[in-house]
Amino acid sequence: MSTFLTGAGLLKAKSRIQPFVHKTSVLTSSFFNELTDCNLYFKCENFQKTGAFKYRGATNAVLQLPEKQKAKGVIAHSSGNHAQALALAAKTQGIKVHIVMPSNGSKVKSDAVAGYGAEITFCEPTLEAREKTVKTLIDQFGYTEVHPFDNDHIIEGQATAAMELIEEVQDLGIIIAPVGGGGLLSGTALAAHYFGQNIKVYAGEPQGANDAKRSFSAGELMPAVNPKTIADGLLTSLSPRTFTLIKNHVSDIFTVSEQEIKDTMKLVWERMKIIIEPSSAVPVAALLKNKEVFKSKQVGIIISGGNVDFTNLPF
Amino acid sequence: MSTFLTGAGLLKAKSRIQPFVHKTSVLTSSFFNELTDCNLYFKCENFQKTGAFKYRGATNAVLQLPEKQKAKGVIAHSSGNHAQALALAAKTQGIKVHIVMPSNGSKVKSDAVAGYGAEITFCEPTLEAREKTVKTLIDQFGYTEVHPFDNDHIIEGQATAAMELIEEVQDLGIIIAPVGGGGLLSGTALAAHYFGQNIKVYAGEPQGANDAKRSFSAGELMPAVNPKTIADGLLTSLSPRTFTLIKNHVSDIFTVSEQEIKDTMKLVWERMKIIIEPSSAVPVAALLKNKEVFKSKQVGIIISGGNVDFTNLPF
Repeated sequence: MSTFLTGAGLLKAKSRIQPFVHKTSVLTSSFFNELTDCNLYFKCENFQKTGAFKYRGATNAVLQLPEKQKAKGVIAHSSGNHAQALALAAKTQGIKVHIVMPSNGSKVKSDAVAGYGAEITFCEPTLEAREKTVKTLIDQFGYTEVHPFDNDHIIEGQATAAMELIEEVQDLGIIIAPVGGGGLLSGTALAAHYFGQNIKVYAGEPQGANDAKRSFSAGELMPAVNPKTIADGLLTSLSPRTFTLIKNHVSDIFTVSEQEIKDTMKLVWERMKIIIEPSSAVPVAALLKNKEVFKSKQVGIIISGGNVDFTNLPF
Repeated sequence: MSTFLTGAGLLKAKSRIQPFVHKTSVLTSSFFNELTDCNLYFKCENFQKTGAFKYRGATNAVLQLPEKQKAKGVIAHSSGNHAQALALAAKTQGIKVHIVMPSNGSKVKSDAVAGYGAEITFCEPTLEAREKTVKTLIDQFGYTEVHPFDNDHIIEGQATAAMELIEEVQDLGIIIAPVGGGGLLSGTALAAHYFGQNIKVYAGEPQGANDAKRSFSAGELMPAVNPKTIADGLLTSLSPRTFTLIKNHVSDIFTVSEQEIKDTMKLVWERMKIIIEPSSAVPVAALLKNKEVFKSKQVGIIISGGNVDFTNLPF
C-alpha cells in the first residue's frame, strides 16, 4: 500500500480540504429505520459542492500538487461528477483545468463544467479516444492528469466523508457505500479501519456492472465487459489499487437489479424528500435486500450524489 | 386574541407534540447565500412526518382534545397536506379519523390518507359540498372537526417550527414563510414575537391567490375570488382569526408570479438537492425578488412541505 494512505495521511487530507468542502448533513428517517429495523444515518454528499462526494477528492488532489504543476494546470476525461468536481476544485484554487468529454454526453453536464470555468475538448465516446485526447493535450500543455479514482490523493479526499460520519455518529457498526471504480469505497474502508471501533464496511453494486463483486469473490481483478446500468456513476471497473484496498478492508459486496435501483431511488425521494441519483440508491437497495446483515445496528450510508436530469426521471 | 395564543401556550404545545414530531433539519446553501447576499437557514418541514409542517398542528390539535371527544373521533375536509397530517396524527394517538375529499382529487393523495388508516368519504369538489358532507358526518357520528388553520391549537402547533429555528440559529433578523389560510404564518409570527429578539416576519404569496396581500394592504379581510396557482397549498384565504394575527405581527407580504414559483422550485431542487413543493418555493421566490430587504441579515425560511407528484413536474 502507498505511504499516503495512512491514518495520518487521511487526517492531513481532512484538514487540507476542510476550508473548501461542505461538512454535509447527516439525515435520519423514521420510515427507513422502521423498514429496516436498524438505525440509519444518511451522509448526504448529494449536498456537497457540485452535488457529489467527488469534490472532496478533487480538492485534495489539486491542493497537494507542487506549485510547478499547479502553474501548468490539470486535466481529466470524464462525462460525470468528476468533471464538475475537478473543474470547480481547480477554479477555486486558481488552477487552469481542461476536461475531455465524450461528444455524445449530455449538454447539461458539459454546460455545468463550462460554467465552472473549465476548458472542454470533446472527443469520440470511447475510452481509447478519451485517453488519447488527454495524452495529446498533456504533451502540448504539460497538464497533470487527475484520475477520478486510481489516485491516492483522490482516495484520501473521498475518505473524509466517512471520517465526518464516524465523528458525528456514536457506535457505528456498519458503513455501506456504492462501488464503481472504488475510490469512494476504498476511502470509506480506510476511514473505518483507522478511525472506527470495529466498523464493518459493505458495498452496493449494480448487477449490470458487477466487476467488484466478481473480483471480490474470485480474489483477482476481473474488469467489467460492456457494463450497463442506470447508475451511471458506477459503470467503471476497479483498478489494481482500489481492488487491493477493497479486498483487504471490505466485508462484502451486495449486488442489486436495475428495478431495485429505480424503486429505491423513488422511495428515497418520496419518503426523505432528498434528491439522490441512481448510484446513491444502490447501497440503500443493497441494504433493503439484505436486512438481516444490518439488523439492530447503527448503520451509516454514504449518499454519493444528487445530480439528476429532471426531464428524464426513471419513474 | 384567544387566551391560547400566548408564549406559555406555545411552549406547552411544543412540549406536548415533541415526542411525536421530527425536529427537522436546518440546511444552509452557499449558492443561495451568494445569490442573495444574506445568510439563509432553510427549516426543512418537507422532512417532517407526512412531508409537511401540517403534522405539527394536527398533532397538537388531537392531543389537546378532551377524552370524550377523542373517543368519538375527528374529521376534516381537505384534498392536501392537512388530510394526511390529521390522518397520521389521529392514528398515532389511537383516535378514529374521517376525511372528506373532493371526488376529483388525485388518487396518490387519497391512497396516502387511506394508508394512514383514515376513513374517506368522497364528495363533489365544491366548498359547499365539502362542508355539508362534514356536517352530516358530524351529526351522525359526533366527530370533532379539526380545521386546517382556523383553530388556535393548529396555529400553536405550526408555531413550533419557527420556535425550533429561533432556538437553533443565532441572531435571526428575519423569518419568511408562505401564506395560504395563514395558520403557518400566524404561528411563525407569534413564535418570533414571543421568542425572537426583534425578528421581523415576512410572507410570500402567489399573485394568483393574493388575498393576504390585498387584505394586508387594505387593512380589512378580502377573501380570494377564483384563486389559481400551482402552489396548491396556498389557494385558501385568510380567516378573521389569522388575518388579525398577521395584521398585528407581520411586516409585509410579497407576491410572486407562477413562473417565478416554478423557476425557484427548480433552482432549489437543482442546487440544494431537496424536494420542495411549489408552495415552499413561494417564500424563496419572494426573497429572490426583494433582495434589498434581506441583505446581510440572518434569514430563516420555512420550507413548508415536499409532497410532489413526480410524474407531473412543472419543469
